[in-house]
Amino acid sequence: MKRTILYLLFTFTVSFFYAKEYPSLMLTKSGVQRIRENLGKNPMFDATISEAKQKADLAISSPIIVPVPKDGGGGLTHEKHKDNYYAMYYSGIMYQITGEEKYASYVQKMLNEYMKLYPGLDYHPVKMSSTPGRLFWQTLNDFVWLVHTSIAYDCVYEYIPEKNRKELNEKLFRPMAFFLMDGNEPNNKTFNKMHNHATWACAAVGMIGYVIQDDELVDKALKGSDRTGKNGGYLKQLDELFSPDGYFTEGAYYQRYAIWPFMIFAQVIDNNQPEMKIFEYRNGIIKKAVNTLIQMTYNGTFFTLNDALPKGLNAQELVFAVNISYAADNSQKELLSIAKQYQSFLLPTDAGYAVARDISLNQAEPFNFKSLLLRDGKDGTKGGLAIYRSEAKNENSVFLMKATSHGLSHGHYDKLTVSYYDDGNPVLTDYGSSRFLNIVVKYNGGYTPLNDSFSMSTIAHNTVSVDGQNHYGGDIKISSKYSPEIYCYDISDPAVKVISAIETNAAPSVKMHRTNAILENIGGSRIILDIFKLTSETTHTYDLPFYYNGDMISLSTPYTKASDNMTTFGTDNGYKYLWKEARATTKDPYVCFTWLKGKKFYSVTTLTDNNSELYFVRSGANDPEYYLRNEPAFIVRQKNTGNHTFLSAIETHGKYDLVVEKTENAVSSVKNIRILEDNSDYTLVEIMVNNITATFKINYGKGCCTPKWTFNLINNK
Amino acid sequence: MKRTILYLLFTFTVSFFYAKEYPSLMLTKSGVQRIRENLGKNPMFDATISEAKQKADLAISSPIIVPVPKDGGGGLTHEKHKDNYYAMYYSGIMYQITGEEKYASYVQKMLNEYMKLYPGLDYHPVKMSSTPGRLFWQTLNDFVWLVHTSIAYDCVYEYIPEKNRKELNEKLFRPMAFFLMDGNEPNNKTFNKMHNHATWACAAVGMIGYVIQDDELVDKALKGSDRTGKNGGYLKQLDELFSPDGYFTEGAYYQRYAIWPFMIFAQVIDNNQPEMKIFEYRNGIIKKAVNTLIQMTYNGTFFTLNDALPKGLNAQELVFAVNISYAADNSQKELLSIAKQYQSFLLPTDAGYAVARDISLNQAEPFNFKSLLLRDGKDGTKGGLAIYRSEAKNENSVFLMKATSHGLSHGHYDKLTVSYYDDGNPVLTDYGSSRFLNIVVKYNGGYTPLNDSFSMSTIAHNTVSVDGQNHYGGDIKISSKYSPEIYCYDISDPAVKVISAIETNAAPSVKMHRTNAILENIGGSRIILDIFKLTSETTHTYDLPFYYNGDMISLSTPYTKASDNMTTFGTDNGYKYLWKEARATTKDPYVCFTWLKGKKFYSVTTLTDNNSELYFVRSGANDPEYYLRNEPAFIVRQKNTGNHTFLSAIETHGKYDLVVEKTENAVSSVKNIRILEDNSDYTLVEIMVNNITATFKINYGKGCCTPKWTFNLINNK
Repeated sequence: MKRTILYLLFTFTVSFFYAKEYPSLMLTKSGVQRIRENLGKNPMFDATISEAKQKADLAISSPIIVPVPKDGGGGLTHEKHKDNYYAMYYSGIMYQITGEEKYASYVQKMLNEYMKLYPGLDYHPVKMSSTPGRLFWQTLNDFVWLVHTSIAYDCVYEYIPEKNRKELNEKLFRPMAFFLMDGNEPNNKTFNKMHNHATWACAAVGMIGYVIQDDELVDKALKGSDRTGKNGGYLKQLDELFSPDGYFTEGAYYQRYAIWPFMIFAQVIDNNQPEMKIFEYRNGIIKKAVNTLIQMTYNGTFFTLNDALPKGLNAQELVFAVNISYAADNSQKELLSIAKQYQSFLLPTDAGYAVARDISLNQAEPFNFKSLLLRDGKDGTKGGLAIYRSEAKNENSVFLMKATSHGLSHGHYDKLTVSYYDDGNPVLTDYGSSRFLNIVVKYNGGYTPLNDSFSMSTIAHNTVSVDGQNHYGGDIKISSKYSPEIYCYDISDPAVKVISAIETNAAPSVKMHRTNAILENIGGSRIILDIFKLTSETTHTYDLPFYYNGDMISLSTPYTKASDNMTTFGTDNGYKYLWKEARATTKDPYVCFTWLKGKKFYSVTTLTDNNSELYFVRSGANDPEYYLRNEPAFIVRQKNTGNHTFLSAIETHGKYDLVVEKTENAVSSVKNIRILEDNSDYTLVEIMVNNITATFKINYGKGCCTPKWTFNLINNK
Repeated sequence: MKRTILYLLFTFTVSFFYAKEYPSLMLTKSGVQRIRENLGKNPMFDATISEAKQKADLAISSPIIVPVPKDGGGGLTHEKHKDNYYAMYYSGIMYQITGEEKYASYVQKMLNEYMKLYPGLDYHPVKMSSTPGRLFWQTLNDFVWLVHTSIAYDCVYEYIPEKNRKELNEKLFRPMAFFLMDGNEPNNKTFNKMHNHATWACAAVGMIGYVIQDDELVDKALKGSDRTGKNGGYLKQLDELFSPDGYFTEGAYYQRYAIWPFMIFAQVIDNNQPEMKIFEYRNGIIKKAVNTLIQMTYNGTFFTLNDALPKGLNAQELVFAVNISYAADNSQKELLSIAKQYQSFLLPTDAGYAVARDISLNQAEPFNFKSLLLRDGKDGTKGGLAIYRSEAKNENSVFLMKATSHGLSHGHYDKLTVSYYDDGNPVLTDYGSSRFLNIVVKYNGGYTPLNDSFSMSTIAHNTVSVDGQNHYGGDIKISSKYSPEIYCYDISDPAVKVISAIETNAAPSVKMHRTNAILENIGGSRIILDIFKLTSETTHTYDLPFYYNGDMISLSTPYTKASDNMTTFGTDNGYKYLWKEARATTKDPYVCFTWLKGKKFYSVTTLTDNNSELYFVRSGANDPEYYLRNEPAFIVRQKNTGNHTFLSAIETHGKYDLVVEKTENAVSSVKNIRILEDNSDYTLVEIMVNNITATFKINYGKGCCTPKWTFNLINNK
């Protein structure tokens, strides 16, 4: 009864739409005209259309099956409803491009089947989600269904007789929009949340609103269900989900996923309400977010921070992002090179056409990958991701320090962790996530249990674990409250780039301050000084791993490797998933570990003393189902200490050329490394590389007149 | 005293050279003319010349240092003498190409320094070789020095005044040639051996013979030191070191190395004695050897059989091989595509110019990679390497069975082992060698001790180990006496390709007969049937590993994986170097193991019974110095059995697409597999893939009227 009244209210709201043109979501009337006129003239876009046509033709030649929802993710009815929205999407687009009614008729018939099914549906029978959908087990999938179906409906809207349209609107689309937005408490909460699921929700509701000319749906999509703009909606998401630098708090891998509905809906808004200038909203935040996402890659693959799999610029989400952002602002010529170099397809839409056209006009410009600090938090105050990228022509290196906030449910407990890429390879690695996406036999394709217990753990990362514990005790609620402080990000000096950040809350009573000084060329090597200062009044054991990629070449001190029996590195937290491969103690003032990856040698030279122990470990223990990859690390352990500063020099050196059988500088060039002074005001270190000596001082005192760091190079001879 | 007389003899032999032109080794007078005329016209060759010039310019601007020999491989004087011959080589060539005397003068000066040094030299002070050199610790390096220096000397011969030439000839080159050929018993033996070291020796002696116009040196190089052609020399090497199919018994990796002096000397002979038609000798064996070597690659990398590192078509030896072979026979247009696709440089010689010229004329044709049987042994009777290569456009697969003879000192104990490559990756792998080439800290860059104990061992390969022993007890002398028999290599049927071979001597009292039937497409999958029949009157334990590359996805039966403690797979032979990662027994009639590599799934479905045990192992145990890579294998063990037939189906299936997040057919399509009959006359097996059933019968009786195999496909529905 109540529902009926609400339906009526929806139906009779006064529309701001007048003389609306169709299509107007991902295609426009004039865009379709342009595409039609240019068919056969642009091989790249012709291939896109031909592929879309193949998919549409396959769809319309198959029987229409709209099953009663039954299965969860990966199951039969789940996959069928997914296939169905793709079938309608491609058929709708092909109707516009070819004008052939068979495509429109197919979409109409399928929509009518959904209209018969939908009103009778209760919550999905698979009760696994706190926000159960109707077609799918979770509303998220229902959102995605509605996004794609809205595009299809938009394409065939004028083909379907008005009476049928009205039925569809009243029996299928408005009830669905209502359910997804306001159907129950959790749905309403999701819709108004500051979260990427809400972006899908708003896009879905807003897009069907534009198609059926319902300005209330559109308004709520833009401003939240209370229509104030203060408590939810797409615009508030644009305000809050990205930092001023266009960084999304979950990291690159999920920024990729989040950007998808953001871009689609932006395109739709821009086509329907160009006066909103949505692409310029908040200083062009959405274009910036795309650019930032592209910046967070190495050789086309996203940095594997937090929960991540090796995806990159070729992912379908990025095709949407690059196509739509370029079409919105044709001055972004560097996006064309991303499309050209990394992406194997285009959108069969106005946006895709614009990209194809301008690539064929040779307008692509190289993307300006660069060093930058990406601040986290909506106002940029919650730490950040510091990216150093080499500039020399023959170099291809990236060094990262992650000093961001926790990053929601996909965040890892890895404050101040570092990664290093060089010469085409990850060199110091971040494990990313333990997940076999879409592989049913591996924990239903979801995150495996070892994702929580190992991949998220602190010891799985290149940062310090204190007393074998995870940062913030592995409690996301606590971890989410705090974020590190970026102490210094300075790339102004050609000789040395400095990244420095502070974390005071991750370990009880321990203050962590890590500083990396990148010396691009000293004595023929690239040296990254790594000064990890720990301050505590109580005694602890500190572990600092270096997860390395490549072949272990040497350690400068004798070590004992497990011969015929191997045990684990520990029994708790992430430690129990590591095999203890080798161990060493030393009396040397420093040790040097060297490995080989591809054509280069890499060394970590690190200070040691009587309280130091060295380990080589490898992931894969206590993993009964083969959920983990076997990845090696070199770990420096410092025992019985309160204040301690790990000082290491991460060096890139030499050349290994199998083609002409030539090896150069396989041995580290670091001749000495030491801490000259270390106190609460500063740490002063000295390094000698071949015949070059340099000192680096990081000042902790924040006096107005003290520079944060100083660097002195002494050419000895 | 004796020596002096011999020198005199050399000096006064009557030369068959008359009106000889210079240069005539790697460059010719007319070739140089052509190169000069075309400078600036071919960017590819211009780059080659420019690179050679850079090297020459660097050389002539550095002081000439010819140190007294002192260090072994990798050491200072060793590297200096190596640098010196390259310096002379490039300078000689640049003199010819530019006509600038500074290059010639540099070579002359350096030769004069060597002339001062050489006569006073005794054996090299590093006493590590049974054939010690004078400039280097082993004569092999002296050969290579002389090969390069001959080329340089040839280039500047007419520049150096006759008096100085005479001195050089008498004090440096003839004594060196004499020493290398006849200086002592071992040298004489090496020179006349059927071995690639002898090819370097003959090339060196023959090349300096051509330069200084000494027909005796040339004659001995061609026909052995007794000049009969029966007991040594380059021609006999061409007769014996390659099989009729152009296969060199050590395998692709060493064929790459061996081909180098073969090609250089062939070029030199052809320039000086074209009437010999050396490139057509023995039905063009040297051209065939180059072609065969190229055939033994996957995506440009050599099959890693026997001692091998991941080298391929870009290796410098292959640049020589491809350039010289093409220049000798311009009809081999497919060599141009190898140069174009895989090689980053050309020879700065007549041969390199020919390649550059014809590539720029767009004459390159695709190389015809194909399935073939490469017989081993000089007359082709010592087994062979069976190569299956997919032909379909979208497929890129290679399956190998190695049933060759032992392969000299670099051979492995792996009779009837198999390898499989697909979709760009090694899928069932061969470990190759344990060696860190030129990395001093890793066992001086040589083969590590674990090369003998693990890499060569039978259990390190995809073939059956009997009772934990190596084939032939790991005794090279015994192993070298025997070779397997190729029972069948039949690629005539489009539906099924059959490879079958027999090994009767590798394990005492056990006859091994392995048959692989490759079904390119059955029920949507590629299936390689693997029938490994073992016949014995005594009881044994048989182990059959499948070294896989990728992520372990599933085993169809429960298994127990080492959780917090891991031990080795065995205590002897190769077994002790394997960690025992997991173990299973089963009551199922067969089990299925699936792994994922890149975008494809692979499964091994293998018969099991009460006597079967299954293991997952990984190399790296008992390896105190990190000499081994960590590579995983799935091992099927059959205990307490005499006659046993391992039946497995190696399947390629499905698709894993992370770009659009789509997974297809992740689960094996093999629905059943069984042996219907197995006796001394034949093995009859049945396999069901999806709804397709097929039978395959391999007949062991060799009656005249029995086909060796039959295959029947039954489409069930």
